[in-house]
Amino acid sequence: MKLNCDMGESFGIWQLGSDEAVMPHIDMANIACGFHASDPLIMQQTVALAKHYNVAVGAHPGYPDLAGFGRRHIRCTADEIQAFILYQVGALAAFCKQQHIPLSYVKPHGALYNDMVQDEAVLIAILKGVAAFSPSLPLMLMAQADNSRSETLAAQFSVPLLFEVFADRRYTDDGLLQPRNLPGAVFTEHSQIINQAIQLAQHGNVTSNNGNLIKLKADTLCVHGDNAQSIEAIAQIKLALPTNKE
Amino acid sequence: MKLNCDMGESFGIWQLGSDEAVMPHIDMANIACGFHASDPLIMQQTVALAKHYNVAVGAHPGYPDLAGFGRRHIRCTADEIQAFILYQVGALAAFCKQQHIPLSYVKPHGALYNDMVQDEAVLIAILKGVAAFSPSLPLMLMAQADNSRSETLAAQFSVPLLFEVFADRRYTDDGLLQPRNLPGAVFTEHSQIINQAIQLAQHGNVTSNNGNLIKLKADTLCVHGDNAQSIEAIAQIKLALPTNKE
Amino acid sequence: MKLNCDMGESFGIWQLGSDEAVMPHIDMANIACGFHASDPLIMQQTVALAKHYNVAVGAHPGYPDLAGFGRRHIRCTADEIQAFILYQVGALAAFCKQQHIPLSYVKPHGALYNDMVQDEAVLIAILKGVAAFSPSLPLMLMAQADNSRSETLAAQFSVPLLFEVFADRRYTDDGLLQPRNLPGAVFTEHSQIINQAIQLAQHGNVTSNNGNLIKLKADTLCVHGDNAQSIEAIAQIKLALPTNKE
Amino acid sequence: MKLNCDMGESFGIWQLGSDEAVMPHIDMANIACGFHASDPLIMQQTVALAKHYNVAVGAHPGYPDLAGFGRRHIRCTADEIQAFILYQVGALAAFCKQQHIPLSYVKPHGALYNDMVQDEAVLIAILKGVAAFSPSLPLMLMAQADNSRSETLAAQFSVPLLFEVFADRRYTDDGLLQPRNLPGAVFTEHSQIINQAIQLAQHGNVTSNNGNLIKLKADTLCVHGDNAQSIEAIAQIKLALPTNKE
Repeated sequence: MKLNCDMGESFGIWQLGSDEAVMPHIDMANIACGFHASDPLIMQQTVALAKHYNVAVGAHPGYPDLAGFGRRHIRCTADEIQAFILYQVGALAAFCKQQHIPLSYVKPHGALYNDMVQDEAVLIAILKGVAAFSPSLPLMLMAQADNSRSETLAAQFSVPLLFEVFADRRYTDDGLLQPRNLPGAVFTEHSQIINQAIQLAQHGNVTSNNGNLIKLKADTLCVHGDNAQSIEAIAQIKLALPTNKE
Repeated sequence: MKLNCDMGESFGIWQLGSDEAVMPHIDMANIACGFHASDPLIMQQTVALAKHYNVAVGAHPGYPDLAGFGRRHIRCTADEIQAFILYQVGALAAFCKQQHIPLSYVKPHGALYNDMVQDEAVLIAILKGVAAFSPSLPLMLMAQADNSRSETLAAQFSVPLLFEVFADRRYTDDGLLQPRNLPGAVFTEHSQIINQAIQLAQHGNVTSNNGNLIKLKADTLCVHGDNAQSIEAIAQIKLALPTNKE
Repeated sequence: MKLNCDMGESFGIWQLGSDEAVMPHIDMANIACGFHASDPLIMQQTVALAKHYNVAVGAHPGYPDLAGFGRRHIRCTADEIQAFILYQVGALAAFCKQQHIPLSYVKPHGALYNDMVQDEAVLIAILKGVAAFSPSLPLMLMAQADNSRSETLAAQFSVPLLFEVFADRRYTDDGLLQPRNLPGAVFTEHSQIINQAIQLAQHGNVTSNNGNLIKLKADTLCVHGDNAQSIEAIAQIKLALPTNKE
Repeated sequence: MKLNCDMGESFGIWQLGSDEAVMPHIDMANIACGFHASDPLIMQQTVALAKHYNVAVGAHPGYPDLAGFGRRHIRCTADEIQAFILYQVGALAAFCKQQHIPLSYVKPHGALYNDMVQDEAVLIAILKGVAAFSPSLPLMLMAQADNSRSETLAAQFSVPLLFEVFADRRYTDDGLLQPRNLPGAVFTEHSQIINQAIQLAQHGNVTSNNGNLIKLKADTLCVHGDNAQSIEAIAQIKLALPTNKE
């Protein structure tokens, strides 16, 4: 199972994340495209860093909202969202062309990611944008207990899907993330995080907040590299995962 | 000789230009990329309009300055400018991919265009950006009496050049445009504009402000479509040009 | 009854509205503050134009969304909205200080206006922002059949309210505007618009879509000056209103 | 001699500086106004923090260039610059009104500050903007060996001036800062920084790069609080200054 992480989320003079420290440990870099974070120079540098560590580059498009870091829902039309996707994916792809590496996938960011999960019209707009850019470009989205609706829609636009799971979040029986405001929603114990990562990788399931085993399709595990502790966790997860032991 | 015109310079609710009226008369559309004008939806619509009229699409990147319409010089580093070019060219190219048409050339806008003409470091940065995006993508720039310096630099980056001339501006002996603040710098008489267009197309020269014949390499003629009068002039120029009579 | 109109909604090179033509006919100018439209120079010019015609200046703050003209709902916190109000009102007030005229009121724009009507938390945030700027500064909002909730909240923050009504929109029995997507929601006949304006001004009521007389508190009538026809309507409404006949 | 420091230069999710640690040690906070850094919520919080430590609040307006942190020169007209000043000063003043504290002065930021020093038209535009906002609001600018030109211009607009000096920069005989690219331009030794601070405070002069004593009018000393080391230096300077010993 591949590790993916949000990268290149600095902006101008402002630094965010620890890209240099995280990049060696991950497989897939979700690189911000200038709408919720980043700027052309940072995009160029981040793509170069990913190439240096042989990490697959994904476009990480968001709503046009630097001040809100793409985390504020903005009520946009489907046409706007499709055009946002094309614009940002195209912009990032230019730096991949410059570095002679492929653009490997698209993963929406923040509120756009959430809206894609909750609103089928948003998912369709994103699928249209991704399909229009390249027929075989995969879209990454959240695995749920039942992915059939997403898979049916994606098949209509011939967009391959990459399902992602989370090692540090507690799941509900629907395969959704327990809301952050509930106690125990976010794991802080390293052992708990690593155990859930291993369970997902080896058995393809998680234990829900109700104690049930929930089957989750998991192509990739999302990790965060905000501080020294989380970077340490990434390294440990990588070592623990079966595919990385060979 | 091809006619090129700036297109897609509206932004959000704000309209600018008469793209619907101008597009049928031109050969090459310089389409704004969101930094000095336009937004993703307008870019998509403008590329579709160009395709409808079989007009070649060029990227028209500018400085990141919507409030100044890209007309204010911003002191940027060469690295920034190269990255600006890649970002904007990539973004526009995504809409070309969506419409299954090629991106045919790059023409910088406003202050970035002027800086490219006056500052060799800016020209090199732009050449690097264009070359990094695609090895055979041409750059459009202003024809001068002596283009040897531009041609030498472009050859170093294997970037083909497209030289553009102006029918409505008075030239100096250097093949530069007489500054706008001098009397007679901008032609307002239709006959004068059409005569200079014909002279450029048939003989490859203009009569300078000193009355000298100045040879100008002219691949394309820049026209403006701001109002009914200027659109009428475009139609007349198109009819008068030899290549359009056959 | 005073006429209020949105003014100063150009941005950079892009023109919107007919401020020069409309300003002589109105009593209150809702002037954009740079978040959904306008820029510092346009704000300065618009305040000067209002002063020239002795029109009261109101701040017209919106969500930070030039590309969406402030018409897209953005899910912001109450603290953000309060700070948005203070920032924009303060910025506009600076130009009033420059011109030695008072800032007379605040009227939120677009999606922020709608959210204020529908979401009490947004109304409270706006009231807090207005009250923090100046204890006696009025807030303009939409008159409804029952304004008691707004009045109670405004009283808590000692903010005077100005209720506005619409001459060109059909009302429901609740004193709300019939949604635009329903037939007959927007009046296009001049006589119908002027009659509703007179009815509101003389009798303080409208005839709803169900044929009922709805009492509406009306301090000011909102007019739009987008084209020659609407400007003509403004002039006619002004003549028809009783306060303007003396 | 008062210590002034740039404050509130975070933006959205991105942190910059150590405002909490620096604020207790300074006398004057130059607070960013949203054009080169900051946003309405951060401005509100920074003004509140300044009030908490009884630090005088100054507006710190810059060019509209978040991506460039206001450090890139943008060729603007004098009218634009005057309007930029009014807009930003007004916006910050709104948060001062909210907190019931005065706005005490204006200090331009980055490229705008440099342009003010080098280009008299920029200085005049800034003076006009400051004077238009409030007749007695002081402008802070760089002390030079000869301030007579600035003082003459400021007197024309009745704007009081505050002259600032630098403890960590080497001066030339003109009282200008030695360019950063020259060796020794920036002091890194604490003792050297503190000695220059004391020399400026007690004797009103510095020793130039040529070893000459240069008289400098010094109302305030600019300090930077980027890291733990520089914050330590601020604390030491504050202790060393005569006015702070009493």
